Amino acid sequence: MNDMVRIPAARLRELSHAALQAAGVPAEDARAGGDILWTGEMMGISTHGVRRLIFYIQRIRDGAIAPRPDLRIEQPGAGTVVIDGGNGLGPVVGSRGVAEALRVARETGIGFVTCRNSHHFGPVAPYALRAVQAGMVAIMGTNAQPVMSPWRGATVTHGNNPIAFAAPRRNGPPFIIDVAQSVVAYSKLRHAHEAGEPIPQGWAADADGKPTTDAEAGMKGFVLPIGGHKGYGFALGVEILAAALSGGAIGAEVKALYRRDATPQGVCHFFIVIDPERTIGREPFLDRMDAMCSMMSAVAPIDPAEPVLIPGEPEARAMDDRERNGVPLPRDWIEDIEAMAAGRTPKGMPER
Amino acid sequence: MNDMVRIPAARLRELSHAALQAAGVPAEDARAGGDILWTGEMMGISTHGVRRLIFYIQRIRDGAIAPRPDLRIEQPGAGTVVIDGGNGLGPVVGSRGVAEALRVARETGIGFVTCRNSHHFGPVAPYALRAVQAGMVAIMGTNAQPVMSPWRGATVTHGNNPIAFAAPRRNGPPFIIDVAQSVVAYSKLRHAHEAGEPIPQGWAADADGKPTTDAEAGMKGFVLPIGGHKGYGFALGVEILAAALSGGAIGAEVKALYRRDATPQGVCHFFIVIDPERTIGREPFLDRMDAMCSMMSAVAPIDPAEPVLIPGEPEARAMDDRERNGVPLPRDWIEDIEAMAAGRTPKGMPER
Repeated sequence: MNDMVRIPAARLRELSHAALQAAGVPAEDARAGGDILWTGEMMGISTHGVRRLIFYIQRIRDGAIAPRPDLRIEQPGAGTVVIDGGNGLGPVVGSRGVAEALRVARETGIGFVTCRNSHHFGPVAPYALRAVQAGMVAIMGTNAQPVMSPWRGATVTHGNNPIAFAAPRRNGPPFIIDVAQSVVAYSKLRHAHEAGEPIPQGWAADADGKPTTDAEAGMKGFVLPIGGHKGYGFALGVEILAAALSGGAIGAEVKALYRRDATPQGVCHFFIVIDPERTIGREPFLDRMDAMCSMMSAVAPIDPAEPVLIPGEPEARAMDDRERNGVPLPRDWIEDIEAMAAGRTPKGMPER
Repeated sequence: MNDMVRIPAARLRELSHAALQAAGVPAEDARAGGDILWTGEMMGISTHGVRRLIFYIQRIRDGAIAPRPDLRIEQPGAGTVVIDGGNGLGPVVGSRGVAEALRVARETGIGFVTCRNSHHFGPVAPYALRAVQAGMVAIMGTNAQPVMSPWRGATVTHGNNPIAFAAPRRNGPPFIIDVAQSVVAYSKLRHAHEAGEPIPQGWAADADGKPTTDAEAGMKGFVLPIGGHKGYGFALGVEILAAALSGGAIGAEVKALYRRDATPQGVCHFFIVIDPERTIGREPFLDRMDAMCSMMSAVAPIDPAEPVLIPGEPEARAMDDRERNGVPLPRDWIEDIEAMAAGRTPKGMPER
């Protein structure tokens, strides 16, 4: 019996920290890293929320993820930082990445951080939110385990490599768009397959590269990029910023998160943070953000049931709901997090 | 009779410079700006190539574009530059933008330039190529005259806002992806309409926001974004970097290029340039680029007639062909450029 229950937001946050700490992660890193997954959950990005803890902690136990990584941080330019994540937890390396980008942006107006030897770091949006909460504009992204093919090919060579753009607003919640270069997430194929349903044309191709509406065939093939060659190009753009400039694992060199050995993933991230104060100034910038957002919000929806949104508004609504009413999670998941926070092995931890 | 002929590349380049100079543009600006359109033409991006000269020069004559703009350049941070383009030619403002971004990147490792009060600046790829030829990685983009609607709405509020990612390679031509946030360019609807052909589902919606396969209905409506809400979010991301941070015209405030009055367009651009030498170093970076490109090129094509490509390879092939064999253009277009270079009114200049 796995019904949905609501757990108080503050309680879930504490459990996220405690689970990582019980797995050997130092307190400060456990707070920073746990907060990323917790924030993802609060934003309603539950595919990349606290459930990931179970996989991250499994990977710590397997010896793939270092709970106390030797993070090496170099600053070869006044505006550029390179981080070797020492095979640490993605959210720990990523938290440090965004913090460094913020520090540099405060000094020079723009900071660029590129990170190698990290792991799956959850959604991009929580890192972007940290930058926005400091008043900054952000462009961020990460490579990921391979699920996509080069355009015109049928061999899986690279990840769906999400990119986020984010900026503060005065008259609304932070602008945040955090999206992968695939039309849909791979998990949507799995859900359709489990439900015995076909998938729409354009989501995936089979192992021979032929477009398919069969979910199982798509799972054996690959998910398709947004805009065809456009999404392919954007995905490689992320590889360049995150992996080529950091000297890390690129494309098919990135390993899967879900495996049971001591092989690190080698995921790479990048963070660009810009201080509006070092452009036209914070207030004139926010005036322009207001103008843009008002322009979009004034547009009548095609379907009255589906209003025109500014990116970030659904996430802000979810955060508000969860803050007030608690975070909806399957009861089993909460029990699993409680088990991990107590240093026990959760029921849901994958055996292999 | 408007047959295609080949004009020597060097001759076309000179004519591009001369046409702008004859329109009152100072020699240095005419060279920098003419080179952008000429390079676009050389790369095979003929929709944004030398034919644009006729519209740009018309707009100079109409008093919308200032041939000798008062460019104001401020550097509020060690890494950030804001340019007021003074209603100058797009390629003149854009050339200065990329030059400033390069200058700053050489100093700090990353340069950010945001530009307001500019005009249509041709394709993004030639600016990206300048950065790559200097050994740099680039992210660039521009807003544009409105042709798109917010996701779920049916009101045209913003442009298709292209973004380019670019990087040097050691074992091949520069990596360059330069793409708009729409599935197809608006001009593809016009071509289908002129040919009396339907358009594929997914290209456009009619004025009520309903997906359409009727080219004329699509022209009265709007082109659709890549990946639905994803392309919408990316387009707004470009508005933020180019227009909100520069304090320029945003979304629907940007005016059309094709009109006959003295109203400037108010287009905004942004340029981010990163020096690999200030990350892991130029040679290790190029090693990683080689690894990525070899990985993609090794993939067998689904259709042997359509090989897997690295972004930038088709453009490099086009440049090579045009350098050797001349640039293919309709005879009338060449006559029009020759007329402009001689300070005369070309036959093809729009009357209204």
